[in-house]
Amino acid sequence: MGGDFGPRVTVGAAKQAIEQIPAIELVLVGDRDKLRHQIEQYGLADDQRVRVHHASEVVDMDELPALALKKKKDSSMRVAIDLVKSGEVQACVSAGNTGALMATSKFVLKTIRGISRPAICTELPGVQGPTHMLDLGANLECSPEHLAEFALMGSILVQSVENIRNPSVGLLNIGSEEVKGNESIKRAAQLIAASGVNYYGFVEGDDIYKGTVDVIVTDGFVGNVSLKTGEGLAALVSHVLQSEFKRNFITRLGALCAMPVLKAVRRKLDPRRYNGASLLGLNGIVVKSHGSADISSFMNAIRIAAIEIENDVPSRISSAIEAHLDQPVEVVT
Amino acid sequence: MGGDFGPRVTVGAAKQAIEQIPAIELVLVGDRDKLRHQIEQYGLADDQRVRVHHASEVVDMDELPALALKKKKDSSMRVAIDLVKSGEVQACVSAGNTGALMATSKFVLKTIRGISRPAICTELPGVQGPTHMLDLGANLECSPEHLAEFALMGSILVQSVENIRNPSVGLLNIGSEEVKGNESIKRAAQLIAASGVNYYGFVEGDDIYKGTVDVIVTDGFVGNVSLKTGEGLAALVSHVLQSEFKRNFITRLGALCAMPVLKAVRRKLDPRRYNGASLLGLNGIVVKSHGSADISSFMNAIRIAAIEIENDVPSRISSAIEAHLDQPVEVVT
Repeated sequence: MGGDFGPRVTVGAAKQAIEQIPAIELVLVGDRDKLRHQIEQYGLADDQRVRVHHASEVVDMDELPALALKKKKDSSMRVAIDLVKSGEVQACVSAGNTGALMATSKFVLKTIRGISRPAICTELPGVQGPTHMLDLGANLECSPEHLAEFALMGSILVQSVENIRNPSVGLLNIGSEEVKGNESIKRAAQLIAASGVNYYGFVEGDDIYKGTVDVIVTDGFVGNVSLKTGEGLAALVSHVLQSEFKRNFITRLGALCAMPVLKAVRRKLDPRRYNGASLLGLNGIVVKSHGSADISSFMNAIRIAAIEIENDVPSRISSAIEAHLDQPVEVVT
Repeated sequence: MGGDFGPRVTVGAAKQAIEQIPAIELVLVGDRDKLRHQIEQYGLADDQRVRVHHASEVVDMDELPALALKKKKDSSMRVAIDLVKSGEVQACVSAGNTGALMATSKFVLKTIRGISRPAICTELPGVQGPTHMLDLGANLECSPEHLAEFALMGSILVQSVENIRNPSVGLLNIGSEEVKGNESIKRAAQLIAASGVNYYGFVEGDDIYKGTVDVIVTDGFVGNVSLKTGEGLAALVSHVLQSEFKRNFITRLGALCAMPVLKAVRRKLDPRRYNGASLLGLNGIVVKSHGSADISSFMNAIRIAAIEIENDVPSRISSAIEAHLDQPVEVVT
């Protein structure tokens, strides 16, 4: 029910998912009548792989997470996560309020033993290939231990989603030399290097879109600012391109000639292609779609959830952290 | 002498500055012979407004700031800052090692009374107009008090450079609502609001390139990552544009038609247009150019220094902070 466009987008994406992902079955959680209407519109009424689970409430996009958790026990978000908990479904995909989704997921599903805090992770495009970055806003302040857990979780997600056996992990810093940064980040570097992931070293802000490494680890404040900085700059480039092409008759003609290429560029860099952020570290799979997602980008979030189910990402994170906990780690300080 | 290209660029920029900035006089600090050679190349040998001050050493781009400060007392950087200290020149512009420039400037010029830490500030393009952001890497961890000082300094710089009477100041956070962020950032918001600057409120990463406010305040870690994230994304967009236009004959033809517009876009967003970061909070004017600056972008850094001289930015910062120190500030906590 969530997101800026509600069931029109989510049910439309459900139809695409049914067509494109062979084994998938979908439970649409929310207002029965509204969902039924869209299901008929999309010709899914007789599809055995789609069913509706009624929920009478909706969490608002700007609602305080703690309040949503406390007051809206029959919200579509809460009910969907309850279904993950009970094992009736294997994953929840939501375009709703991020804070409420994280708070509710933590409360209902609980954090994996050995993981201190769940984190939010998404894919971003890069010159040398995509990068996954975490955390993107769930944890504003992170200890070195938290960052080391993020490195482990990000690494396992990329193994599953990208099918890379030994993903490289970089720690975001303000310089790539070992002497850079404060004591906390140097300690995090030691912990990550000792944790068994394929640690690359420090990376800088420009390495994100270079695609220097497969996984970039940072705290939720920096991750969130960096992600949104990229969104802002992309919007600026698009704005300047449009206004320059509209300048006069000649430039409009130029725009016409260049249109197929510009469309291809936009497609390649379209954030919707990368839509779907994984809430990692929970006893269950939860994928957050951008609130403004359209059908094909919400479909991408469903696709990510399906891959996480196939690879049983929570169990793999759990096994990795258990193995890590069993092993005494020696870090020279 | 500094930067990736040395005197070829700096002397070339000096020639442009002499031509374009009426009252300016330039002292070129560095190896006498190398500078003389370039000065002759650029036809500046008889110009009364250009003279050379010999310095026998050069700080390397990757030299440790503390070592450079201790060992290279006759480096071009150190000598140039000494000239600011002695009053022989009114500003220093350098494309050299940022850390060494900040450390040497702090050591020689000292920090303005009432300012705890100098900060680095630069202009960035935005949809609604440019923004100045600080700090960009001098201070990794900042207290609320530091951030409030940055707000004051950034505000005075923008008053001078952009000629905006009452610049709006935003505090970078992971949400614009007042409840967002940790206690430290909420406290910083209170201090900034009480400091007499035109406080806008919290801004997010995407507000940087939207140009939502005139000044954005953040700590040096976040500022540096955000700045470099933007550089990385700009490089990715440029890379994808180029590779798409080169795809086949038709797209190459499209590129040809669109070339004037693409060049205009590049010009508008060119980071070199915004080259020149001010080291604020020192008893003297120091402007840092990007190491890879070419002649016209180094010229821009000289232009910024000239405007700061004209407006006597250090004195204005000093007066503002003194006025602020005299005034008892009441902040409700």
